[in-house]
Amino acid sequence: MEKRFVLKISGKIIDPREPQRIAGYSSVIKRLVDDGYRVAVVVGGGPYAREYISCAKNLGFTDAQADIIGIEIARVNALLLAYALGEYGYIPIPRNIEDVYRAWSTGKVVVVGGLQPGQSTAAVAMVIAESLGVRNVLYATTVDGIYDKDPNKFSNAKKLNRISIDEVQKYISQRYEAGGYELLDPLAIGIAKRSCIEITVFNGLQPENVFKALLHEIGTHVICHE
Amino acid sequence: MEKRFVLKISGKIIDPREPQRIAGYSSVIKRLVDDGYRVAVVVGGGPYAREYISCAKNLGFTDAQADIIGIEIARVNALLLAYALGEYGYIPIPRNIEDVYRAWSTGKVVVVGGLQPGQSTAAVAMVIAESLGVRNVLYATTVDGIYDKDPNKFSNAKKLNRISIDEVQKYISQRYEAGGYELLDPLAIGIAKRSCIEITVFNGLQPENVFKALLHEIGTHVICHE
Amino acid sequence: MEKRFVLKISGKIIDPREPQRIAGYSSVIKRLVDDGYRVAVVVGGGPYAREYISCAKNLGFTDAQADIIGIEIARVNALLLAYALGEYGYIPIPRNIEDVYRAWSTGKVVVVGGLQPGQSTAAVAMVIAESLGVRNVLYATTVDGIYDKDPNKFSNAKKLNRISIDEVQKYISQRYEAGGYELLDPLAIGIAKRSCIEITVFNGLQPENVFKALLHEIGTHVICHE
Amino acid sequence: MEKRFVLKISGKIIDPREPQRIAGYSSVIKRLVDDGYRVAVVVGGGPYAREYISCAKNLGFTDAQADIIGIEIARVNALLLAYALGEYGYIPIPRNIEDVYRAWSTGKVVVVGGLQPGQSTAAVAMVIAESLGVRNVLYATTVDGIYDKDPNKFSNAKKLNRISIDEVQKYISQRYEAGGYELLDPLAIGIAKRSCIEITVFNGLQPENVFKALLHEIGTHVICHE
Amino acid sequence: MEKRFVLKISGKIIDPREPQRIAGYSSVIKRLVDDGYRVAVVVGGGPYAREYISCAKNLGFTDAQADIIGIEIARVNALLLAYALGEYGYIPIPRNIEDVYRAWSTGKVVVVGGLQPGQSTAAVAMVIAESLGVRNVLYATTVDGIYDKDPNKFSNAKKLNRISIDEVQKYISQRYEAGGYELLDPLAIGIAKRSCIEITVFNGLQPENVFKALLHEIGTHVICHE
Amino acid sequence: MEKRFVLKISGKIIDPREPQRIAGYSSVIKRLVDDGYRVAVVVGGGPYAREYISCAKNLGFTDAQADIIGIEIARVNALLLAYALGEYGYIPIPRNIEDVYRAWSTGKVVVVGGLQPGQSTAAVAMVIAESLGVRNVLYATTVDGIYDKDPNKFSNAKKLNRISIDEVQKYISQRYEAGGYELLDPLAIGIAKRSCIEITVFNGLQPENVFKALLHEIGTHVICHE
Repeated sequence: MEKRFVLKISGKIIDPREPQRIAGYSSVIKRLVDDGYRVAVVVGGGPYAREYISCAKNLGFTDAQADIIGIEIARVNALLLAYALGEYGYIPIPRNIEDVYRAWSTGKVVVVGGLQPGQSTAAVAMVIAESLGVRNVLYATTVDGIYDKDPNKFSNAKKLNRISIDEVQKYISQRYEAGGYELLDPLAIGIAKRSCIEITVFNGLQPENVFKALLHEIGTHVICHE
Repeated sequence: MEKRFVLKISGKIIDPREPQRIAGYSSVIKRLVDDGYRVAVVVGGGPYAREYISCAKNLGFTDAQADIIGIEIARVNALLLAYALGEYGYIPIPRNIEDVYRAWSTGKVVVVGGLQPGQSTAAVAMVIAESLGVRNVLYATTVDGIYDKDPNKFSNAKKLNRISIDEVQKYISQRYEAGGYELLDPLAIGIAKRSCIEITVFNGLQPENVFKALLHEIGTHVICHE
Repeated sequence: MEKRFVLKISGKIIDPREPQRIAGYSSVIKRLVDDGYRVAVVVGGGPYAREYISCAKNLGFTDAQADIIGIEIARVNALLLAYALGEYGYIPIPRNIEDVYRAWSTGKVVVVGGLQPGQSTAAVAMVIAESLGVRNVLYATTVDGIYDKDPNKFSNAKKLNRISIDEVQKYISQRYEAGGYELLDPLAIGIAKRSCIEITVFNGLQPENVFKALLHEIGTHVICHE
Repeated sequence: MEKRFVLKISGKIIDPREPQRIAGYSSVIKRLVDDGYRVAVVVGGGPYAREYISCAKNLGFTDAQADIIGIEIARVNALLLAYALGEYGYIPIPRNIEDVYRAWSTGKVVVVGGLQPGQSTAAVAMVIAESLGVRNVLYATTVDGIYDKDPNKFSNAKKLNRISIDEVQKYISQRYEAGGYELLDPLAIGIAKRSCIEITVFNGLQPENVFKALLHEIGTHVICHE
Repeated sequence: MEKRFVLKISGKIIDPREPQRIAGYSSVIKRLVDDGYRVAVVVGGGPYAREYISCAKNLGFTDAQADIIGIEIARVNALLLAYALGEYGYIPIPRNIEDVYRAWSTGKVVVVGGLQPGQSTAAVAMVIAESLGVRNVLYATTVDGIYDKDPNKFSNAKKLNRISIDEVQKYISQRYEAGGYELLDPLAIGIAKRSCIEITVFNGLQPENVFKALLHEIGTHVICHE
Repeated sequence: MEKRFVLKISGKIIDPREPQRIAGYSSVIKRLVDDGYRVAVVVGGGPYAREYISCAKNLGFTDAQADIIGIEIARVNALLLAYALGEYGYIPIPRNIEDVYRAWSTGKVVVVGGLQPGQSTAAVAMVIAESLGVRNVLYATTVDGIYDKDPNKFSNAKKLNRISIDEVQKYISQRYEAGGYELLDPLAIGIAKRSCIEITVFNGLQPENVFKALLHEIGTHVICHE
């Protein structure tokens, strides 16, 4: 069994106002490295990124420019986690795919915050996984997984334990308003599909859930074919 | 009228087996710079990229890895054009969006060959246009423009002189098999739409056609709203 | 008269929650460039930097590590201003003194957000001025200048129009609690003194004040010798 | 016995049209690394480099510019091998001698495709060996070794098993038309001589021959003194 | 007990006219690495730096520019030591704090010669220690430690075995002309104090003294609190 | 007439112990730039480089490593000239051929001190000229030009005003002990020949001689064909 994975963490989870959660992720990742895992982490921008992006829009910048500003904030979040990792983490935060390779070559945990305008954090996680030849993405978010309907609208929405990437794509193309719609954009799905990358979407508010997600005990396991 | 544009040239057009066409593009771009234009160029990989990508696939590399290898060939094509531009061209070929900014700051013509795996050359052109705040993309390809039907299948296919980006998107989502389908992928269209970037798709086998495309005398002019 | 200066702007002034002020600084700088000035700008981190630094401290990072995180936020502020400057501004934001030289060589306005841990923004402004051979620093802050006593404590505190750098140093070494104490640290003063760099401390809440500060019509003019 | 060597592979051997040979070299190198060897590899440009160089000449570029274009193709060949090496290989491909040091410091196999115009691939191999303090170069080519006469002209030409670098130099200065003439240029010989670098020229069409060349079982062993 | 330290070596000690001492330091550091230590080294510029700085002043350069020139010479001294370290040393010499992190991530011994104008070598050692989270600095100089009076003026000056950083600071602020005055500038002391970095000032003319200094058998041990 | 040239200056001429000569070269180059010339300068290492190289040899470093150390000193000499050039000079000193292109793109005077081990300063000047497409090299040295015999041995040695590159090559291959022997190595001659680069060897102890050398009023004019 391959002991390499990309961990995508929402900017709502790695947030400077919640230092204890950053410390928690740092502990979890260190334990996994001690257990033989190689890990790359993609961190989102979260609420501060949104404030900076709002300023950028207000100033009339283009979407790409606003995006780059949001990526810079995500990189500061990434730096918080990288410093928390101490000798386990790679610094400085990689700024493009070549930097990612350089960092990965040292054997350290690589934490990034975005690479290029026009891509969701989920897509960045897939691009990095595919570039490194990694086929396992853990996707830490604020919900428990992917639902068959929008759980905010339907009380009978049911969390899916296991779903194929084709089905996720179908939900999206039909704009079914299921949870999957916001989590994975077409580029992320496209890469997952063509390279058969497995994704586990799980509730990452508790860092220890990473261990359970690795074993598919929680969340939704998106598999590449039936 | 803004005198800045991004020129996207297919790898079938900038091809080392056709040095005269490279020389032709170099002359055209120099004349435009002398006339006050600022130009960024995105060059595709063409047939040699395909041969290298085929080797990559044969060796079991992932799509992202094969993509990066194709981008490297596109960069060599870009270098051919950059050298042909002499003192007008920026060298070395930028390898990421920050490099593009550095190159652009010198006032030289910036020629790139791709930035990141998972993106078409058309998408790269849009990302660069949006990052630089440029709203005009000239799209040199081997056909005369976008057709209402696939011109290879329907003898009565008609070239469109003017079309909105929404209509292009509709063709694609309906998989109408029109020419636009292969020319512009969803990411390229999405950026063009959100930043109101105008695109002129034209036959670039004759470098001088760039002058006509700039004036919308040839090709298909994709406008951002009616 | 030399038409080159370094403009240091407090992070309280260049703040993403105040986009109009960023736009104002952008207009002012563009006009000065059109008038023949060459400008380097140093931007502070402001309230967001303080939030990130507080998280860093909470996680047990060292002061240097917390400092670097604050510098990263200052760089995002710098990027906001650099994008607002459009074709006048250099991107990407320089990250060390060699980057500053590279950027300066293009003739663009160079905006930075800090270079190294252990230095105040004022010290960075002096280091950059001295490295570029510039002898004029405009210092935009939230107070009207340097006072003979702490204006927050003494109602009869008087703003000084003109003061020598030696006197500023004396205030500080005597811990006189004057306004100068917080504005200029020993490193900043030491460089200003040895290279005879003139400093104009002024209220930068109104971007247009830069014009008046250039003419010494407002603020406190710190001269290098009587 | 030192377990470090530089492996120079002709562009005729590492060729994208022969993926199986690339896979073969990758296997051989991985086994040597597992056996404790440290390896740097220099790859030539081969037939595609020649096509690009021919275009460059056609466009009137200088020899240095054409050379740089050929080096770029050699770097894509190097990238093919580096990706084939998986976690054993360093990416991105080093572009100058400082990059080589950075890559070497990670402990990975370093694959390069040329560093600077005006140097043969053989000279690059010697420069890298000398810069890293390595005294053993394996030279994979399409012939079986160095001959006492040109084997294409003389049916009685005899492959030399062992020859001193002084004799190779003599052949060249007398333009004896022996096989050594095309294999090693004056710069490569000069470095080999001054740093006593041993060279084993061997037929590299079969990747497994590397094992035999390491033991001097095949090819010509060029020693630095009698 | 933490096995990481920063070793600061005066430019009078690492001097190209004394190759044997460089070899000696190389042996000592290698032994410590073999014993499990991680080491970063900061090397001063010494007499050649002074000659170049004198030329810079003569040409009317600013202090920062002269400083940068001195740092470049210190970097060449650092390179001498890095090459002497062979496979233990990181090359190329890091030029800014991000380079230091990149180098440190490889696990090699990192040798630097200065990072930025306006900082003493002692301050650089403290900045690097604090950035890496290291709390132990060995300070190799040409005197035996810190004295209670200036040993050049007072025959009864007594070397201090142990002193708190507060006392060192007091000596300096009172300009007591003690040995500490020249060794540690305010920035270096400020960082040592805030991050509780212990400093051992010792006579480094004999490289083997590093072992004794590590055990506090020689020199002056500057502790962060009583 | 092309107004671009590469100026190669011996390390014996640009020497920190002779600041006035550095100032003189700075003035001369600024005047030429004001007159419309574009200039790249290659500076040698001189006596300090030799001292550092001697230390390197003493420590058992390889020739390439010693070479790199000498290049670093040449770069510090280059930095002295670049700072003296003020706003005319590019900083930081380029460290490889891609850096040279980046620097050249800004329009500034580019000063380098060497690029790679195993190359004379003369060869570096030729590589840069050929890479930039420049066909004129001014070669400032401590003798008046190339002689028909060694002027140190033969009182009747005659300075040549004009000589073809073929003749220079003949002198060298015959080891005629003429002055040209030490000035131009085979790589430098080879590049000059294949790209028809004209070289003017002249006495550069007086910086103003550059003006005369440009007009072929002094020195030896090496032409590429009769």
